Amino acid sequence: MKIVVRLSTPEDMPQVLRLIKDLAAFEKEINAVEISEATLIREGFGKNAIFTCFVAELDKKIVGMALVYDRFSTWKGRSIHLEDLVVNSDLRGRGIGKALYSEVIKYAVKRNVKRLEWVVLDWNKNAIDFYESSGAKLLKDWYLVQMDLSRMEKYLKKNNNFN
Amino acid sequence: MKIVVRLSTPEDMPQVLRLIKDLAAFEKEINAVEISEATLIREGFGKNAIFTCFVAELDKKIVGMALVYDRFSTWKGRSIHLEDLVVNSDLRGRGIGKALYSEVIKYAVKRNVKRLEWVVLDWNKNAIDFYESSGAKLLKDWYLVQMDLSRMEKYLKKNNNFN
Repeated sequence: MKIVVRLSTPEDMPQVLRLIKDLAAFEKEINAVEISEATLIREGFGKNAIFTCFVAELDKKIVGMALVYDRFSTWKGRSIHLEDLVVNSDLRGRGIGKALYSEVIKYAVKRNVKRLEWVVLDWNKNAIDFYESSGAKLLKDWYLVQMDLSRMEKYLKKNNNFN
Repeated sequence: MKIVVRLSTPEDMPQVLRLIKDLAAFEKEINAVEISEATLIREGFGKNAIFTCFVAELDKKIVGMALVYDRFSTWKGRSIHLEDLVVNSDLRGRGIGKALYSEVIKYAVKRNVKRLEWVVLDWNKNAIDFYESSGAKLLKDWYLVQMDLSRMEKYLKKNNNFN
């Protein structure tokens, strides 16, 4: 079995979107995926690209992907965020995920950032065990906080801040 | 008391760094701050700027700041991350934090993103209460995961992935 990990192209985005949806289904959030192929192509390619996506190929078919982008830590400077790492569910346990993970770490080291970071669901024991065995550190004393567009608009309206 | 919230300039970065260190001290991580004024100026201004920083002025003195940057959600598309929001400790409770917070929400809505996000320490009850009362949603089932440069290099060495 020969796995090839390479940078994605716009033509890969339909397969990447399929993998995004697979991961969202696994995370019990399938209805949360609002993104389209067109958005992935617009935001991931060209001179204003915000993310970089790697894909794993097996027999010329895309069977996994890892998507990263730059962040900025006011403690460490530029860092890289691993947003998604997904492998076809019927091909797990064959090292495809690890090949993608290694590629992301190589990319971060080459880019000379001080930190790679991501998030994991607290019940995803397999992922947590893998991350910890690879040397990553879990931070359990932070909560994520989110405000979606409708709540932002509501906040501004309530606080008379539309202008 | 007249608070002015405005975009920061490179000349503000010494004061911004002071506020970053104040927040790190509050979060019991003062030794974690490795960043310099030069890095803030390099990464925050010019055409490759990765972050946007707002400052709050009181009597022409900087008394607070909020620093944001773009992220990319594979579910929602482009989002904005609020990395730090800090107010001088002797001036808390006067609405300066709320003025900065409102500015960030206005900025996110103007930029037409679907989501604003950040993290909060689980013991920071005042902040959590404020965020929840403003309409933000706490996600308690995710862990942050980080791998710093030395651990990345160790991983690559162990997996024979240096090339």
